[in-house]
Amino acid sequence: MKLAEAGELFLLEKIRRKFNRKFSDVVCGIGDDAAVVRVLRKNMLLTTDMMVEGVHFDLKWTTPFQLGFKLISVNISDIYAMGGRPRFVLINFAAPGDAGTDMFKRVFDGIERAARTYDVAVIGGDVSSAGNVVLSASMVGYASVILTRGGARNGDCIYVSGALGEAACGLELMKRLGKPVEIEKGRRADFGLEWRDVSPLISRHLMPLATNPEKFARRATAMMDISDGLLIDLSRLCRESGVGAVIDLQRIPISGELRRAAAHLKLSPLDMAMGGGEDYRLLFTAPEDAGVGAYCIGRIGGRGLRAVNEAGRVHKLAVKGYQHFASV
Amino acid sequence: MKLAEAGELFLLEKIRRKFNRKFSDVVCGIGDDAAVVRVLRKNMLLTTDMMVEGVHFDLKWTTPFQLGFKLISVNISDIYAMGGRPRFVLINFAAPGDAGTDMFKRVFDGIERAARTYDVAVIGGDVSSAGNVVLSASMVGYASVILTRGGARNGDCIYVSGALGEAACGLELMKRLGKPVEIEKGRRADFGLEWRDVSPLISRHLMPLATNPEKFARRATAMMDISDGLLIDLSRLCRESGVGAVIDLQRIPISGELRRAAAHLKLSPLDMAMGGGEDYRLLFTAPEDAGVGAYCIGRIGGRGLRAVNEAGRVHKLAVKGYQHFASV
Repeated sequence: MKLAEAGELFLLEKIRRKFNRKFSDVVCGIGDDAAVVRVLRKNMLLTTDMMVEGVHFDLKWTTPFQLGFKLISVNISDIYAMGGRPRFVLINFAAPGDAGTDMFKRVFDGIERAARTYDVAVIGGDVSSAGNVVLSASMVGYASVILTRGGARNGDCIYVSGALGEAACGLELMKRLGKPVEIEKGRRADFGLEWRDVSPLISRHLMPLATNPEKFARRATAMMDISDGLLIDLSRLCRESGVGAVIDLQRIPISGELRRAAAHLKLSPLDMAMGGGEDYRLLFTAPEDAGVGAYCIGRIGGRGLRAVNEAGRVHKLAVKGYQHFASV
Repeated sequence: MKLAEAGELFLLEKIRRKFNRKFSDVVCGIGDDAAVVRVLRKNMLLTTDMMVEGVHFDLKWTTPFQLGFKLISVNISDIYAMGGRPRFVLINFAAPGDAGTDMFKRVFDGIERAARTYDVAVIGGDVSSAGNVVLSASMVGYASVILTRGGARNGDCIYVSGALGEAACGLELMKRLGKPVEIEKGRRADFGLEWRDVSPLISRHLMPLATNPEKFARRATAMMDISDGLLIDLSRLCRESGVGAVIDLQRIPISGELRRAAAHLKLSPLDMAMGGGEDYRLLFTAPEDAGVGAYCIGRIGGRGLRAVNEAGRVHKLAVKGYQHFASV
């Protein structure tokens, strides 16, 4: 059945039933003019992120389930990136009237799975017809420590919470495959590579997990998530903190899976790690030897963004990464 | 300059500067991964609403300023409709790369004007390229009384806070004119009618003001805003409350402006008042003689939706109003 045949009221009723789980802090969930929640802490975090068809995703190689899951992850990541704990989410869903109700259902299946994964309550949203699929979520969370981008100090180490470039490589693999793989159902596809190498890469692109900041938050001086690429995001952190940075290229964490897949694709793993977006790893600064269990990739200091290569030579870095409405 | 030439970072910087007003309860506004706010009350209201080009608006006869203003109003209206007080808002803006930066600026000018009108803080958002203009806002407010759609009781009077059908008539006037009128700058246009008749009608369509529920909230048993049309919205209120309703057609408030414009357009003012959407008046139920200063248009009771006409004859009503993905 098409969305245009189902109608908005039918769709809203479906969503309402799907998210009818009771939460003690949700007084009034989906179905009224606004949701009512009981706030448990004084400092709240609020963020919103869009996903637009043809810009953020391509349904040629993305399943609707993956889309829904990722929508939640990218918004969770912004709450995590402030050192916070996500709690409530509102969803906006727009799609062409000739899209199938099955697509609609699967997007919300993915949202539901992610909501359970991160333990957040889906409390409302809006549904509309549109020329393309456009999704957005607004996430509300609680702050304990507040980790902005503005707290980095000279001498701090620069940390990333995990391997970089995997999402960019996963995207490249999916583009070349050109069809969806239902990894959410344990399905595989032949990429001409070992599945155990492919799996973490395409998973990070299709269904990324946001990184919980708990073990880093106490020592961190500044924090953000890497959504547009290490260099562009680090340059933002530096600008907000009024500092410069030097990155040690040899210490950028690149996984074996990325190395092997990049070799197969004839692409540079370092380029993907420096410029590739959507890894949703955390980027943060902290005093040296903070014992935070993350990868130290450089140090705050000097002016602008610079890199040290294996020969010990320092050079300026050109900032690369994703920017809407422009290619930098 | 086109958005594609300006780039996301430039646009975000513009927004950040525009909304740099300080609020004592905003710890961290636009510019980080999430906004941080200090919550002043225990019960919070959260809502989100989209506006999609070609579905909710047409730039052929709507200025970008009006669009931005209306985006805020429709979201404020949802907070008001729960008996609440709006406080914070997040904005999502998506548009084609070849749209002008002037359009972008004017949308946010309209948002700023509305934010001042309703005294809410714009604390964050997201910007993306897209095939069409798609806007959404997520509004956060405080609840004092909580007025859901579910509290109407048999015998309650049904109230509306003001004249109905004006937005529908305003839309019809604008469609026929087929070009924008910058009412925000005091501009006029020739509709073949007295301007004092046209002005409130097109204003209600182009730049509606949400209705503050303050003077009704204490006595109301159920409340919602009229966004899709009196009949469809009343049918929702009745369903949530598990009641029926009888409307007295003679008591539906229809303004002189609407009567005169409708006569000119050869349309039925009563049809517009019953089925036309986007008036953003409040619809609520309260005990009789509650002295609420609103129009009593009928009474809760019986089953289904019925109407009494001037001859005293009761008949069933077919529910009409706007539904996405379907025309009812």
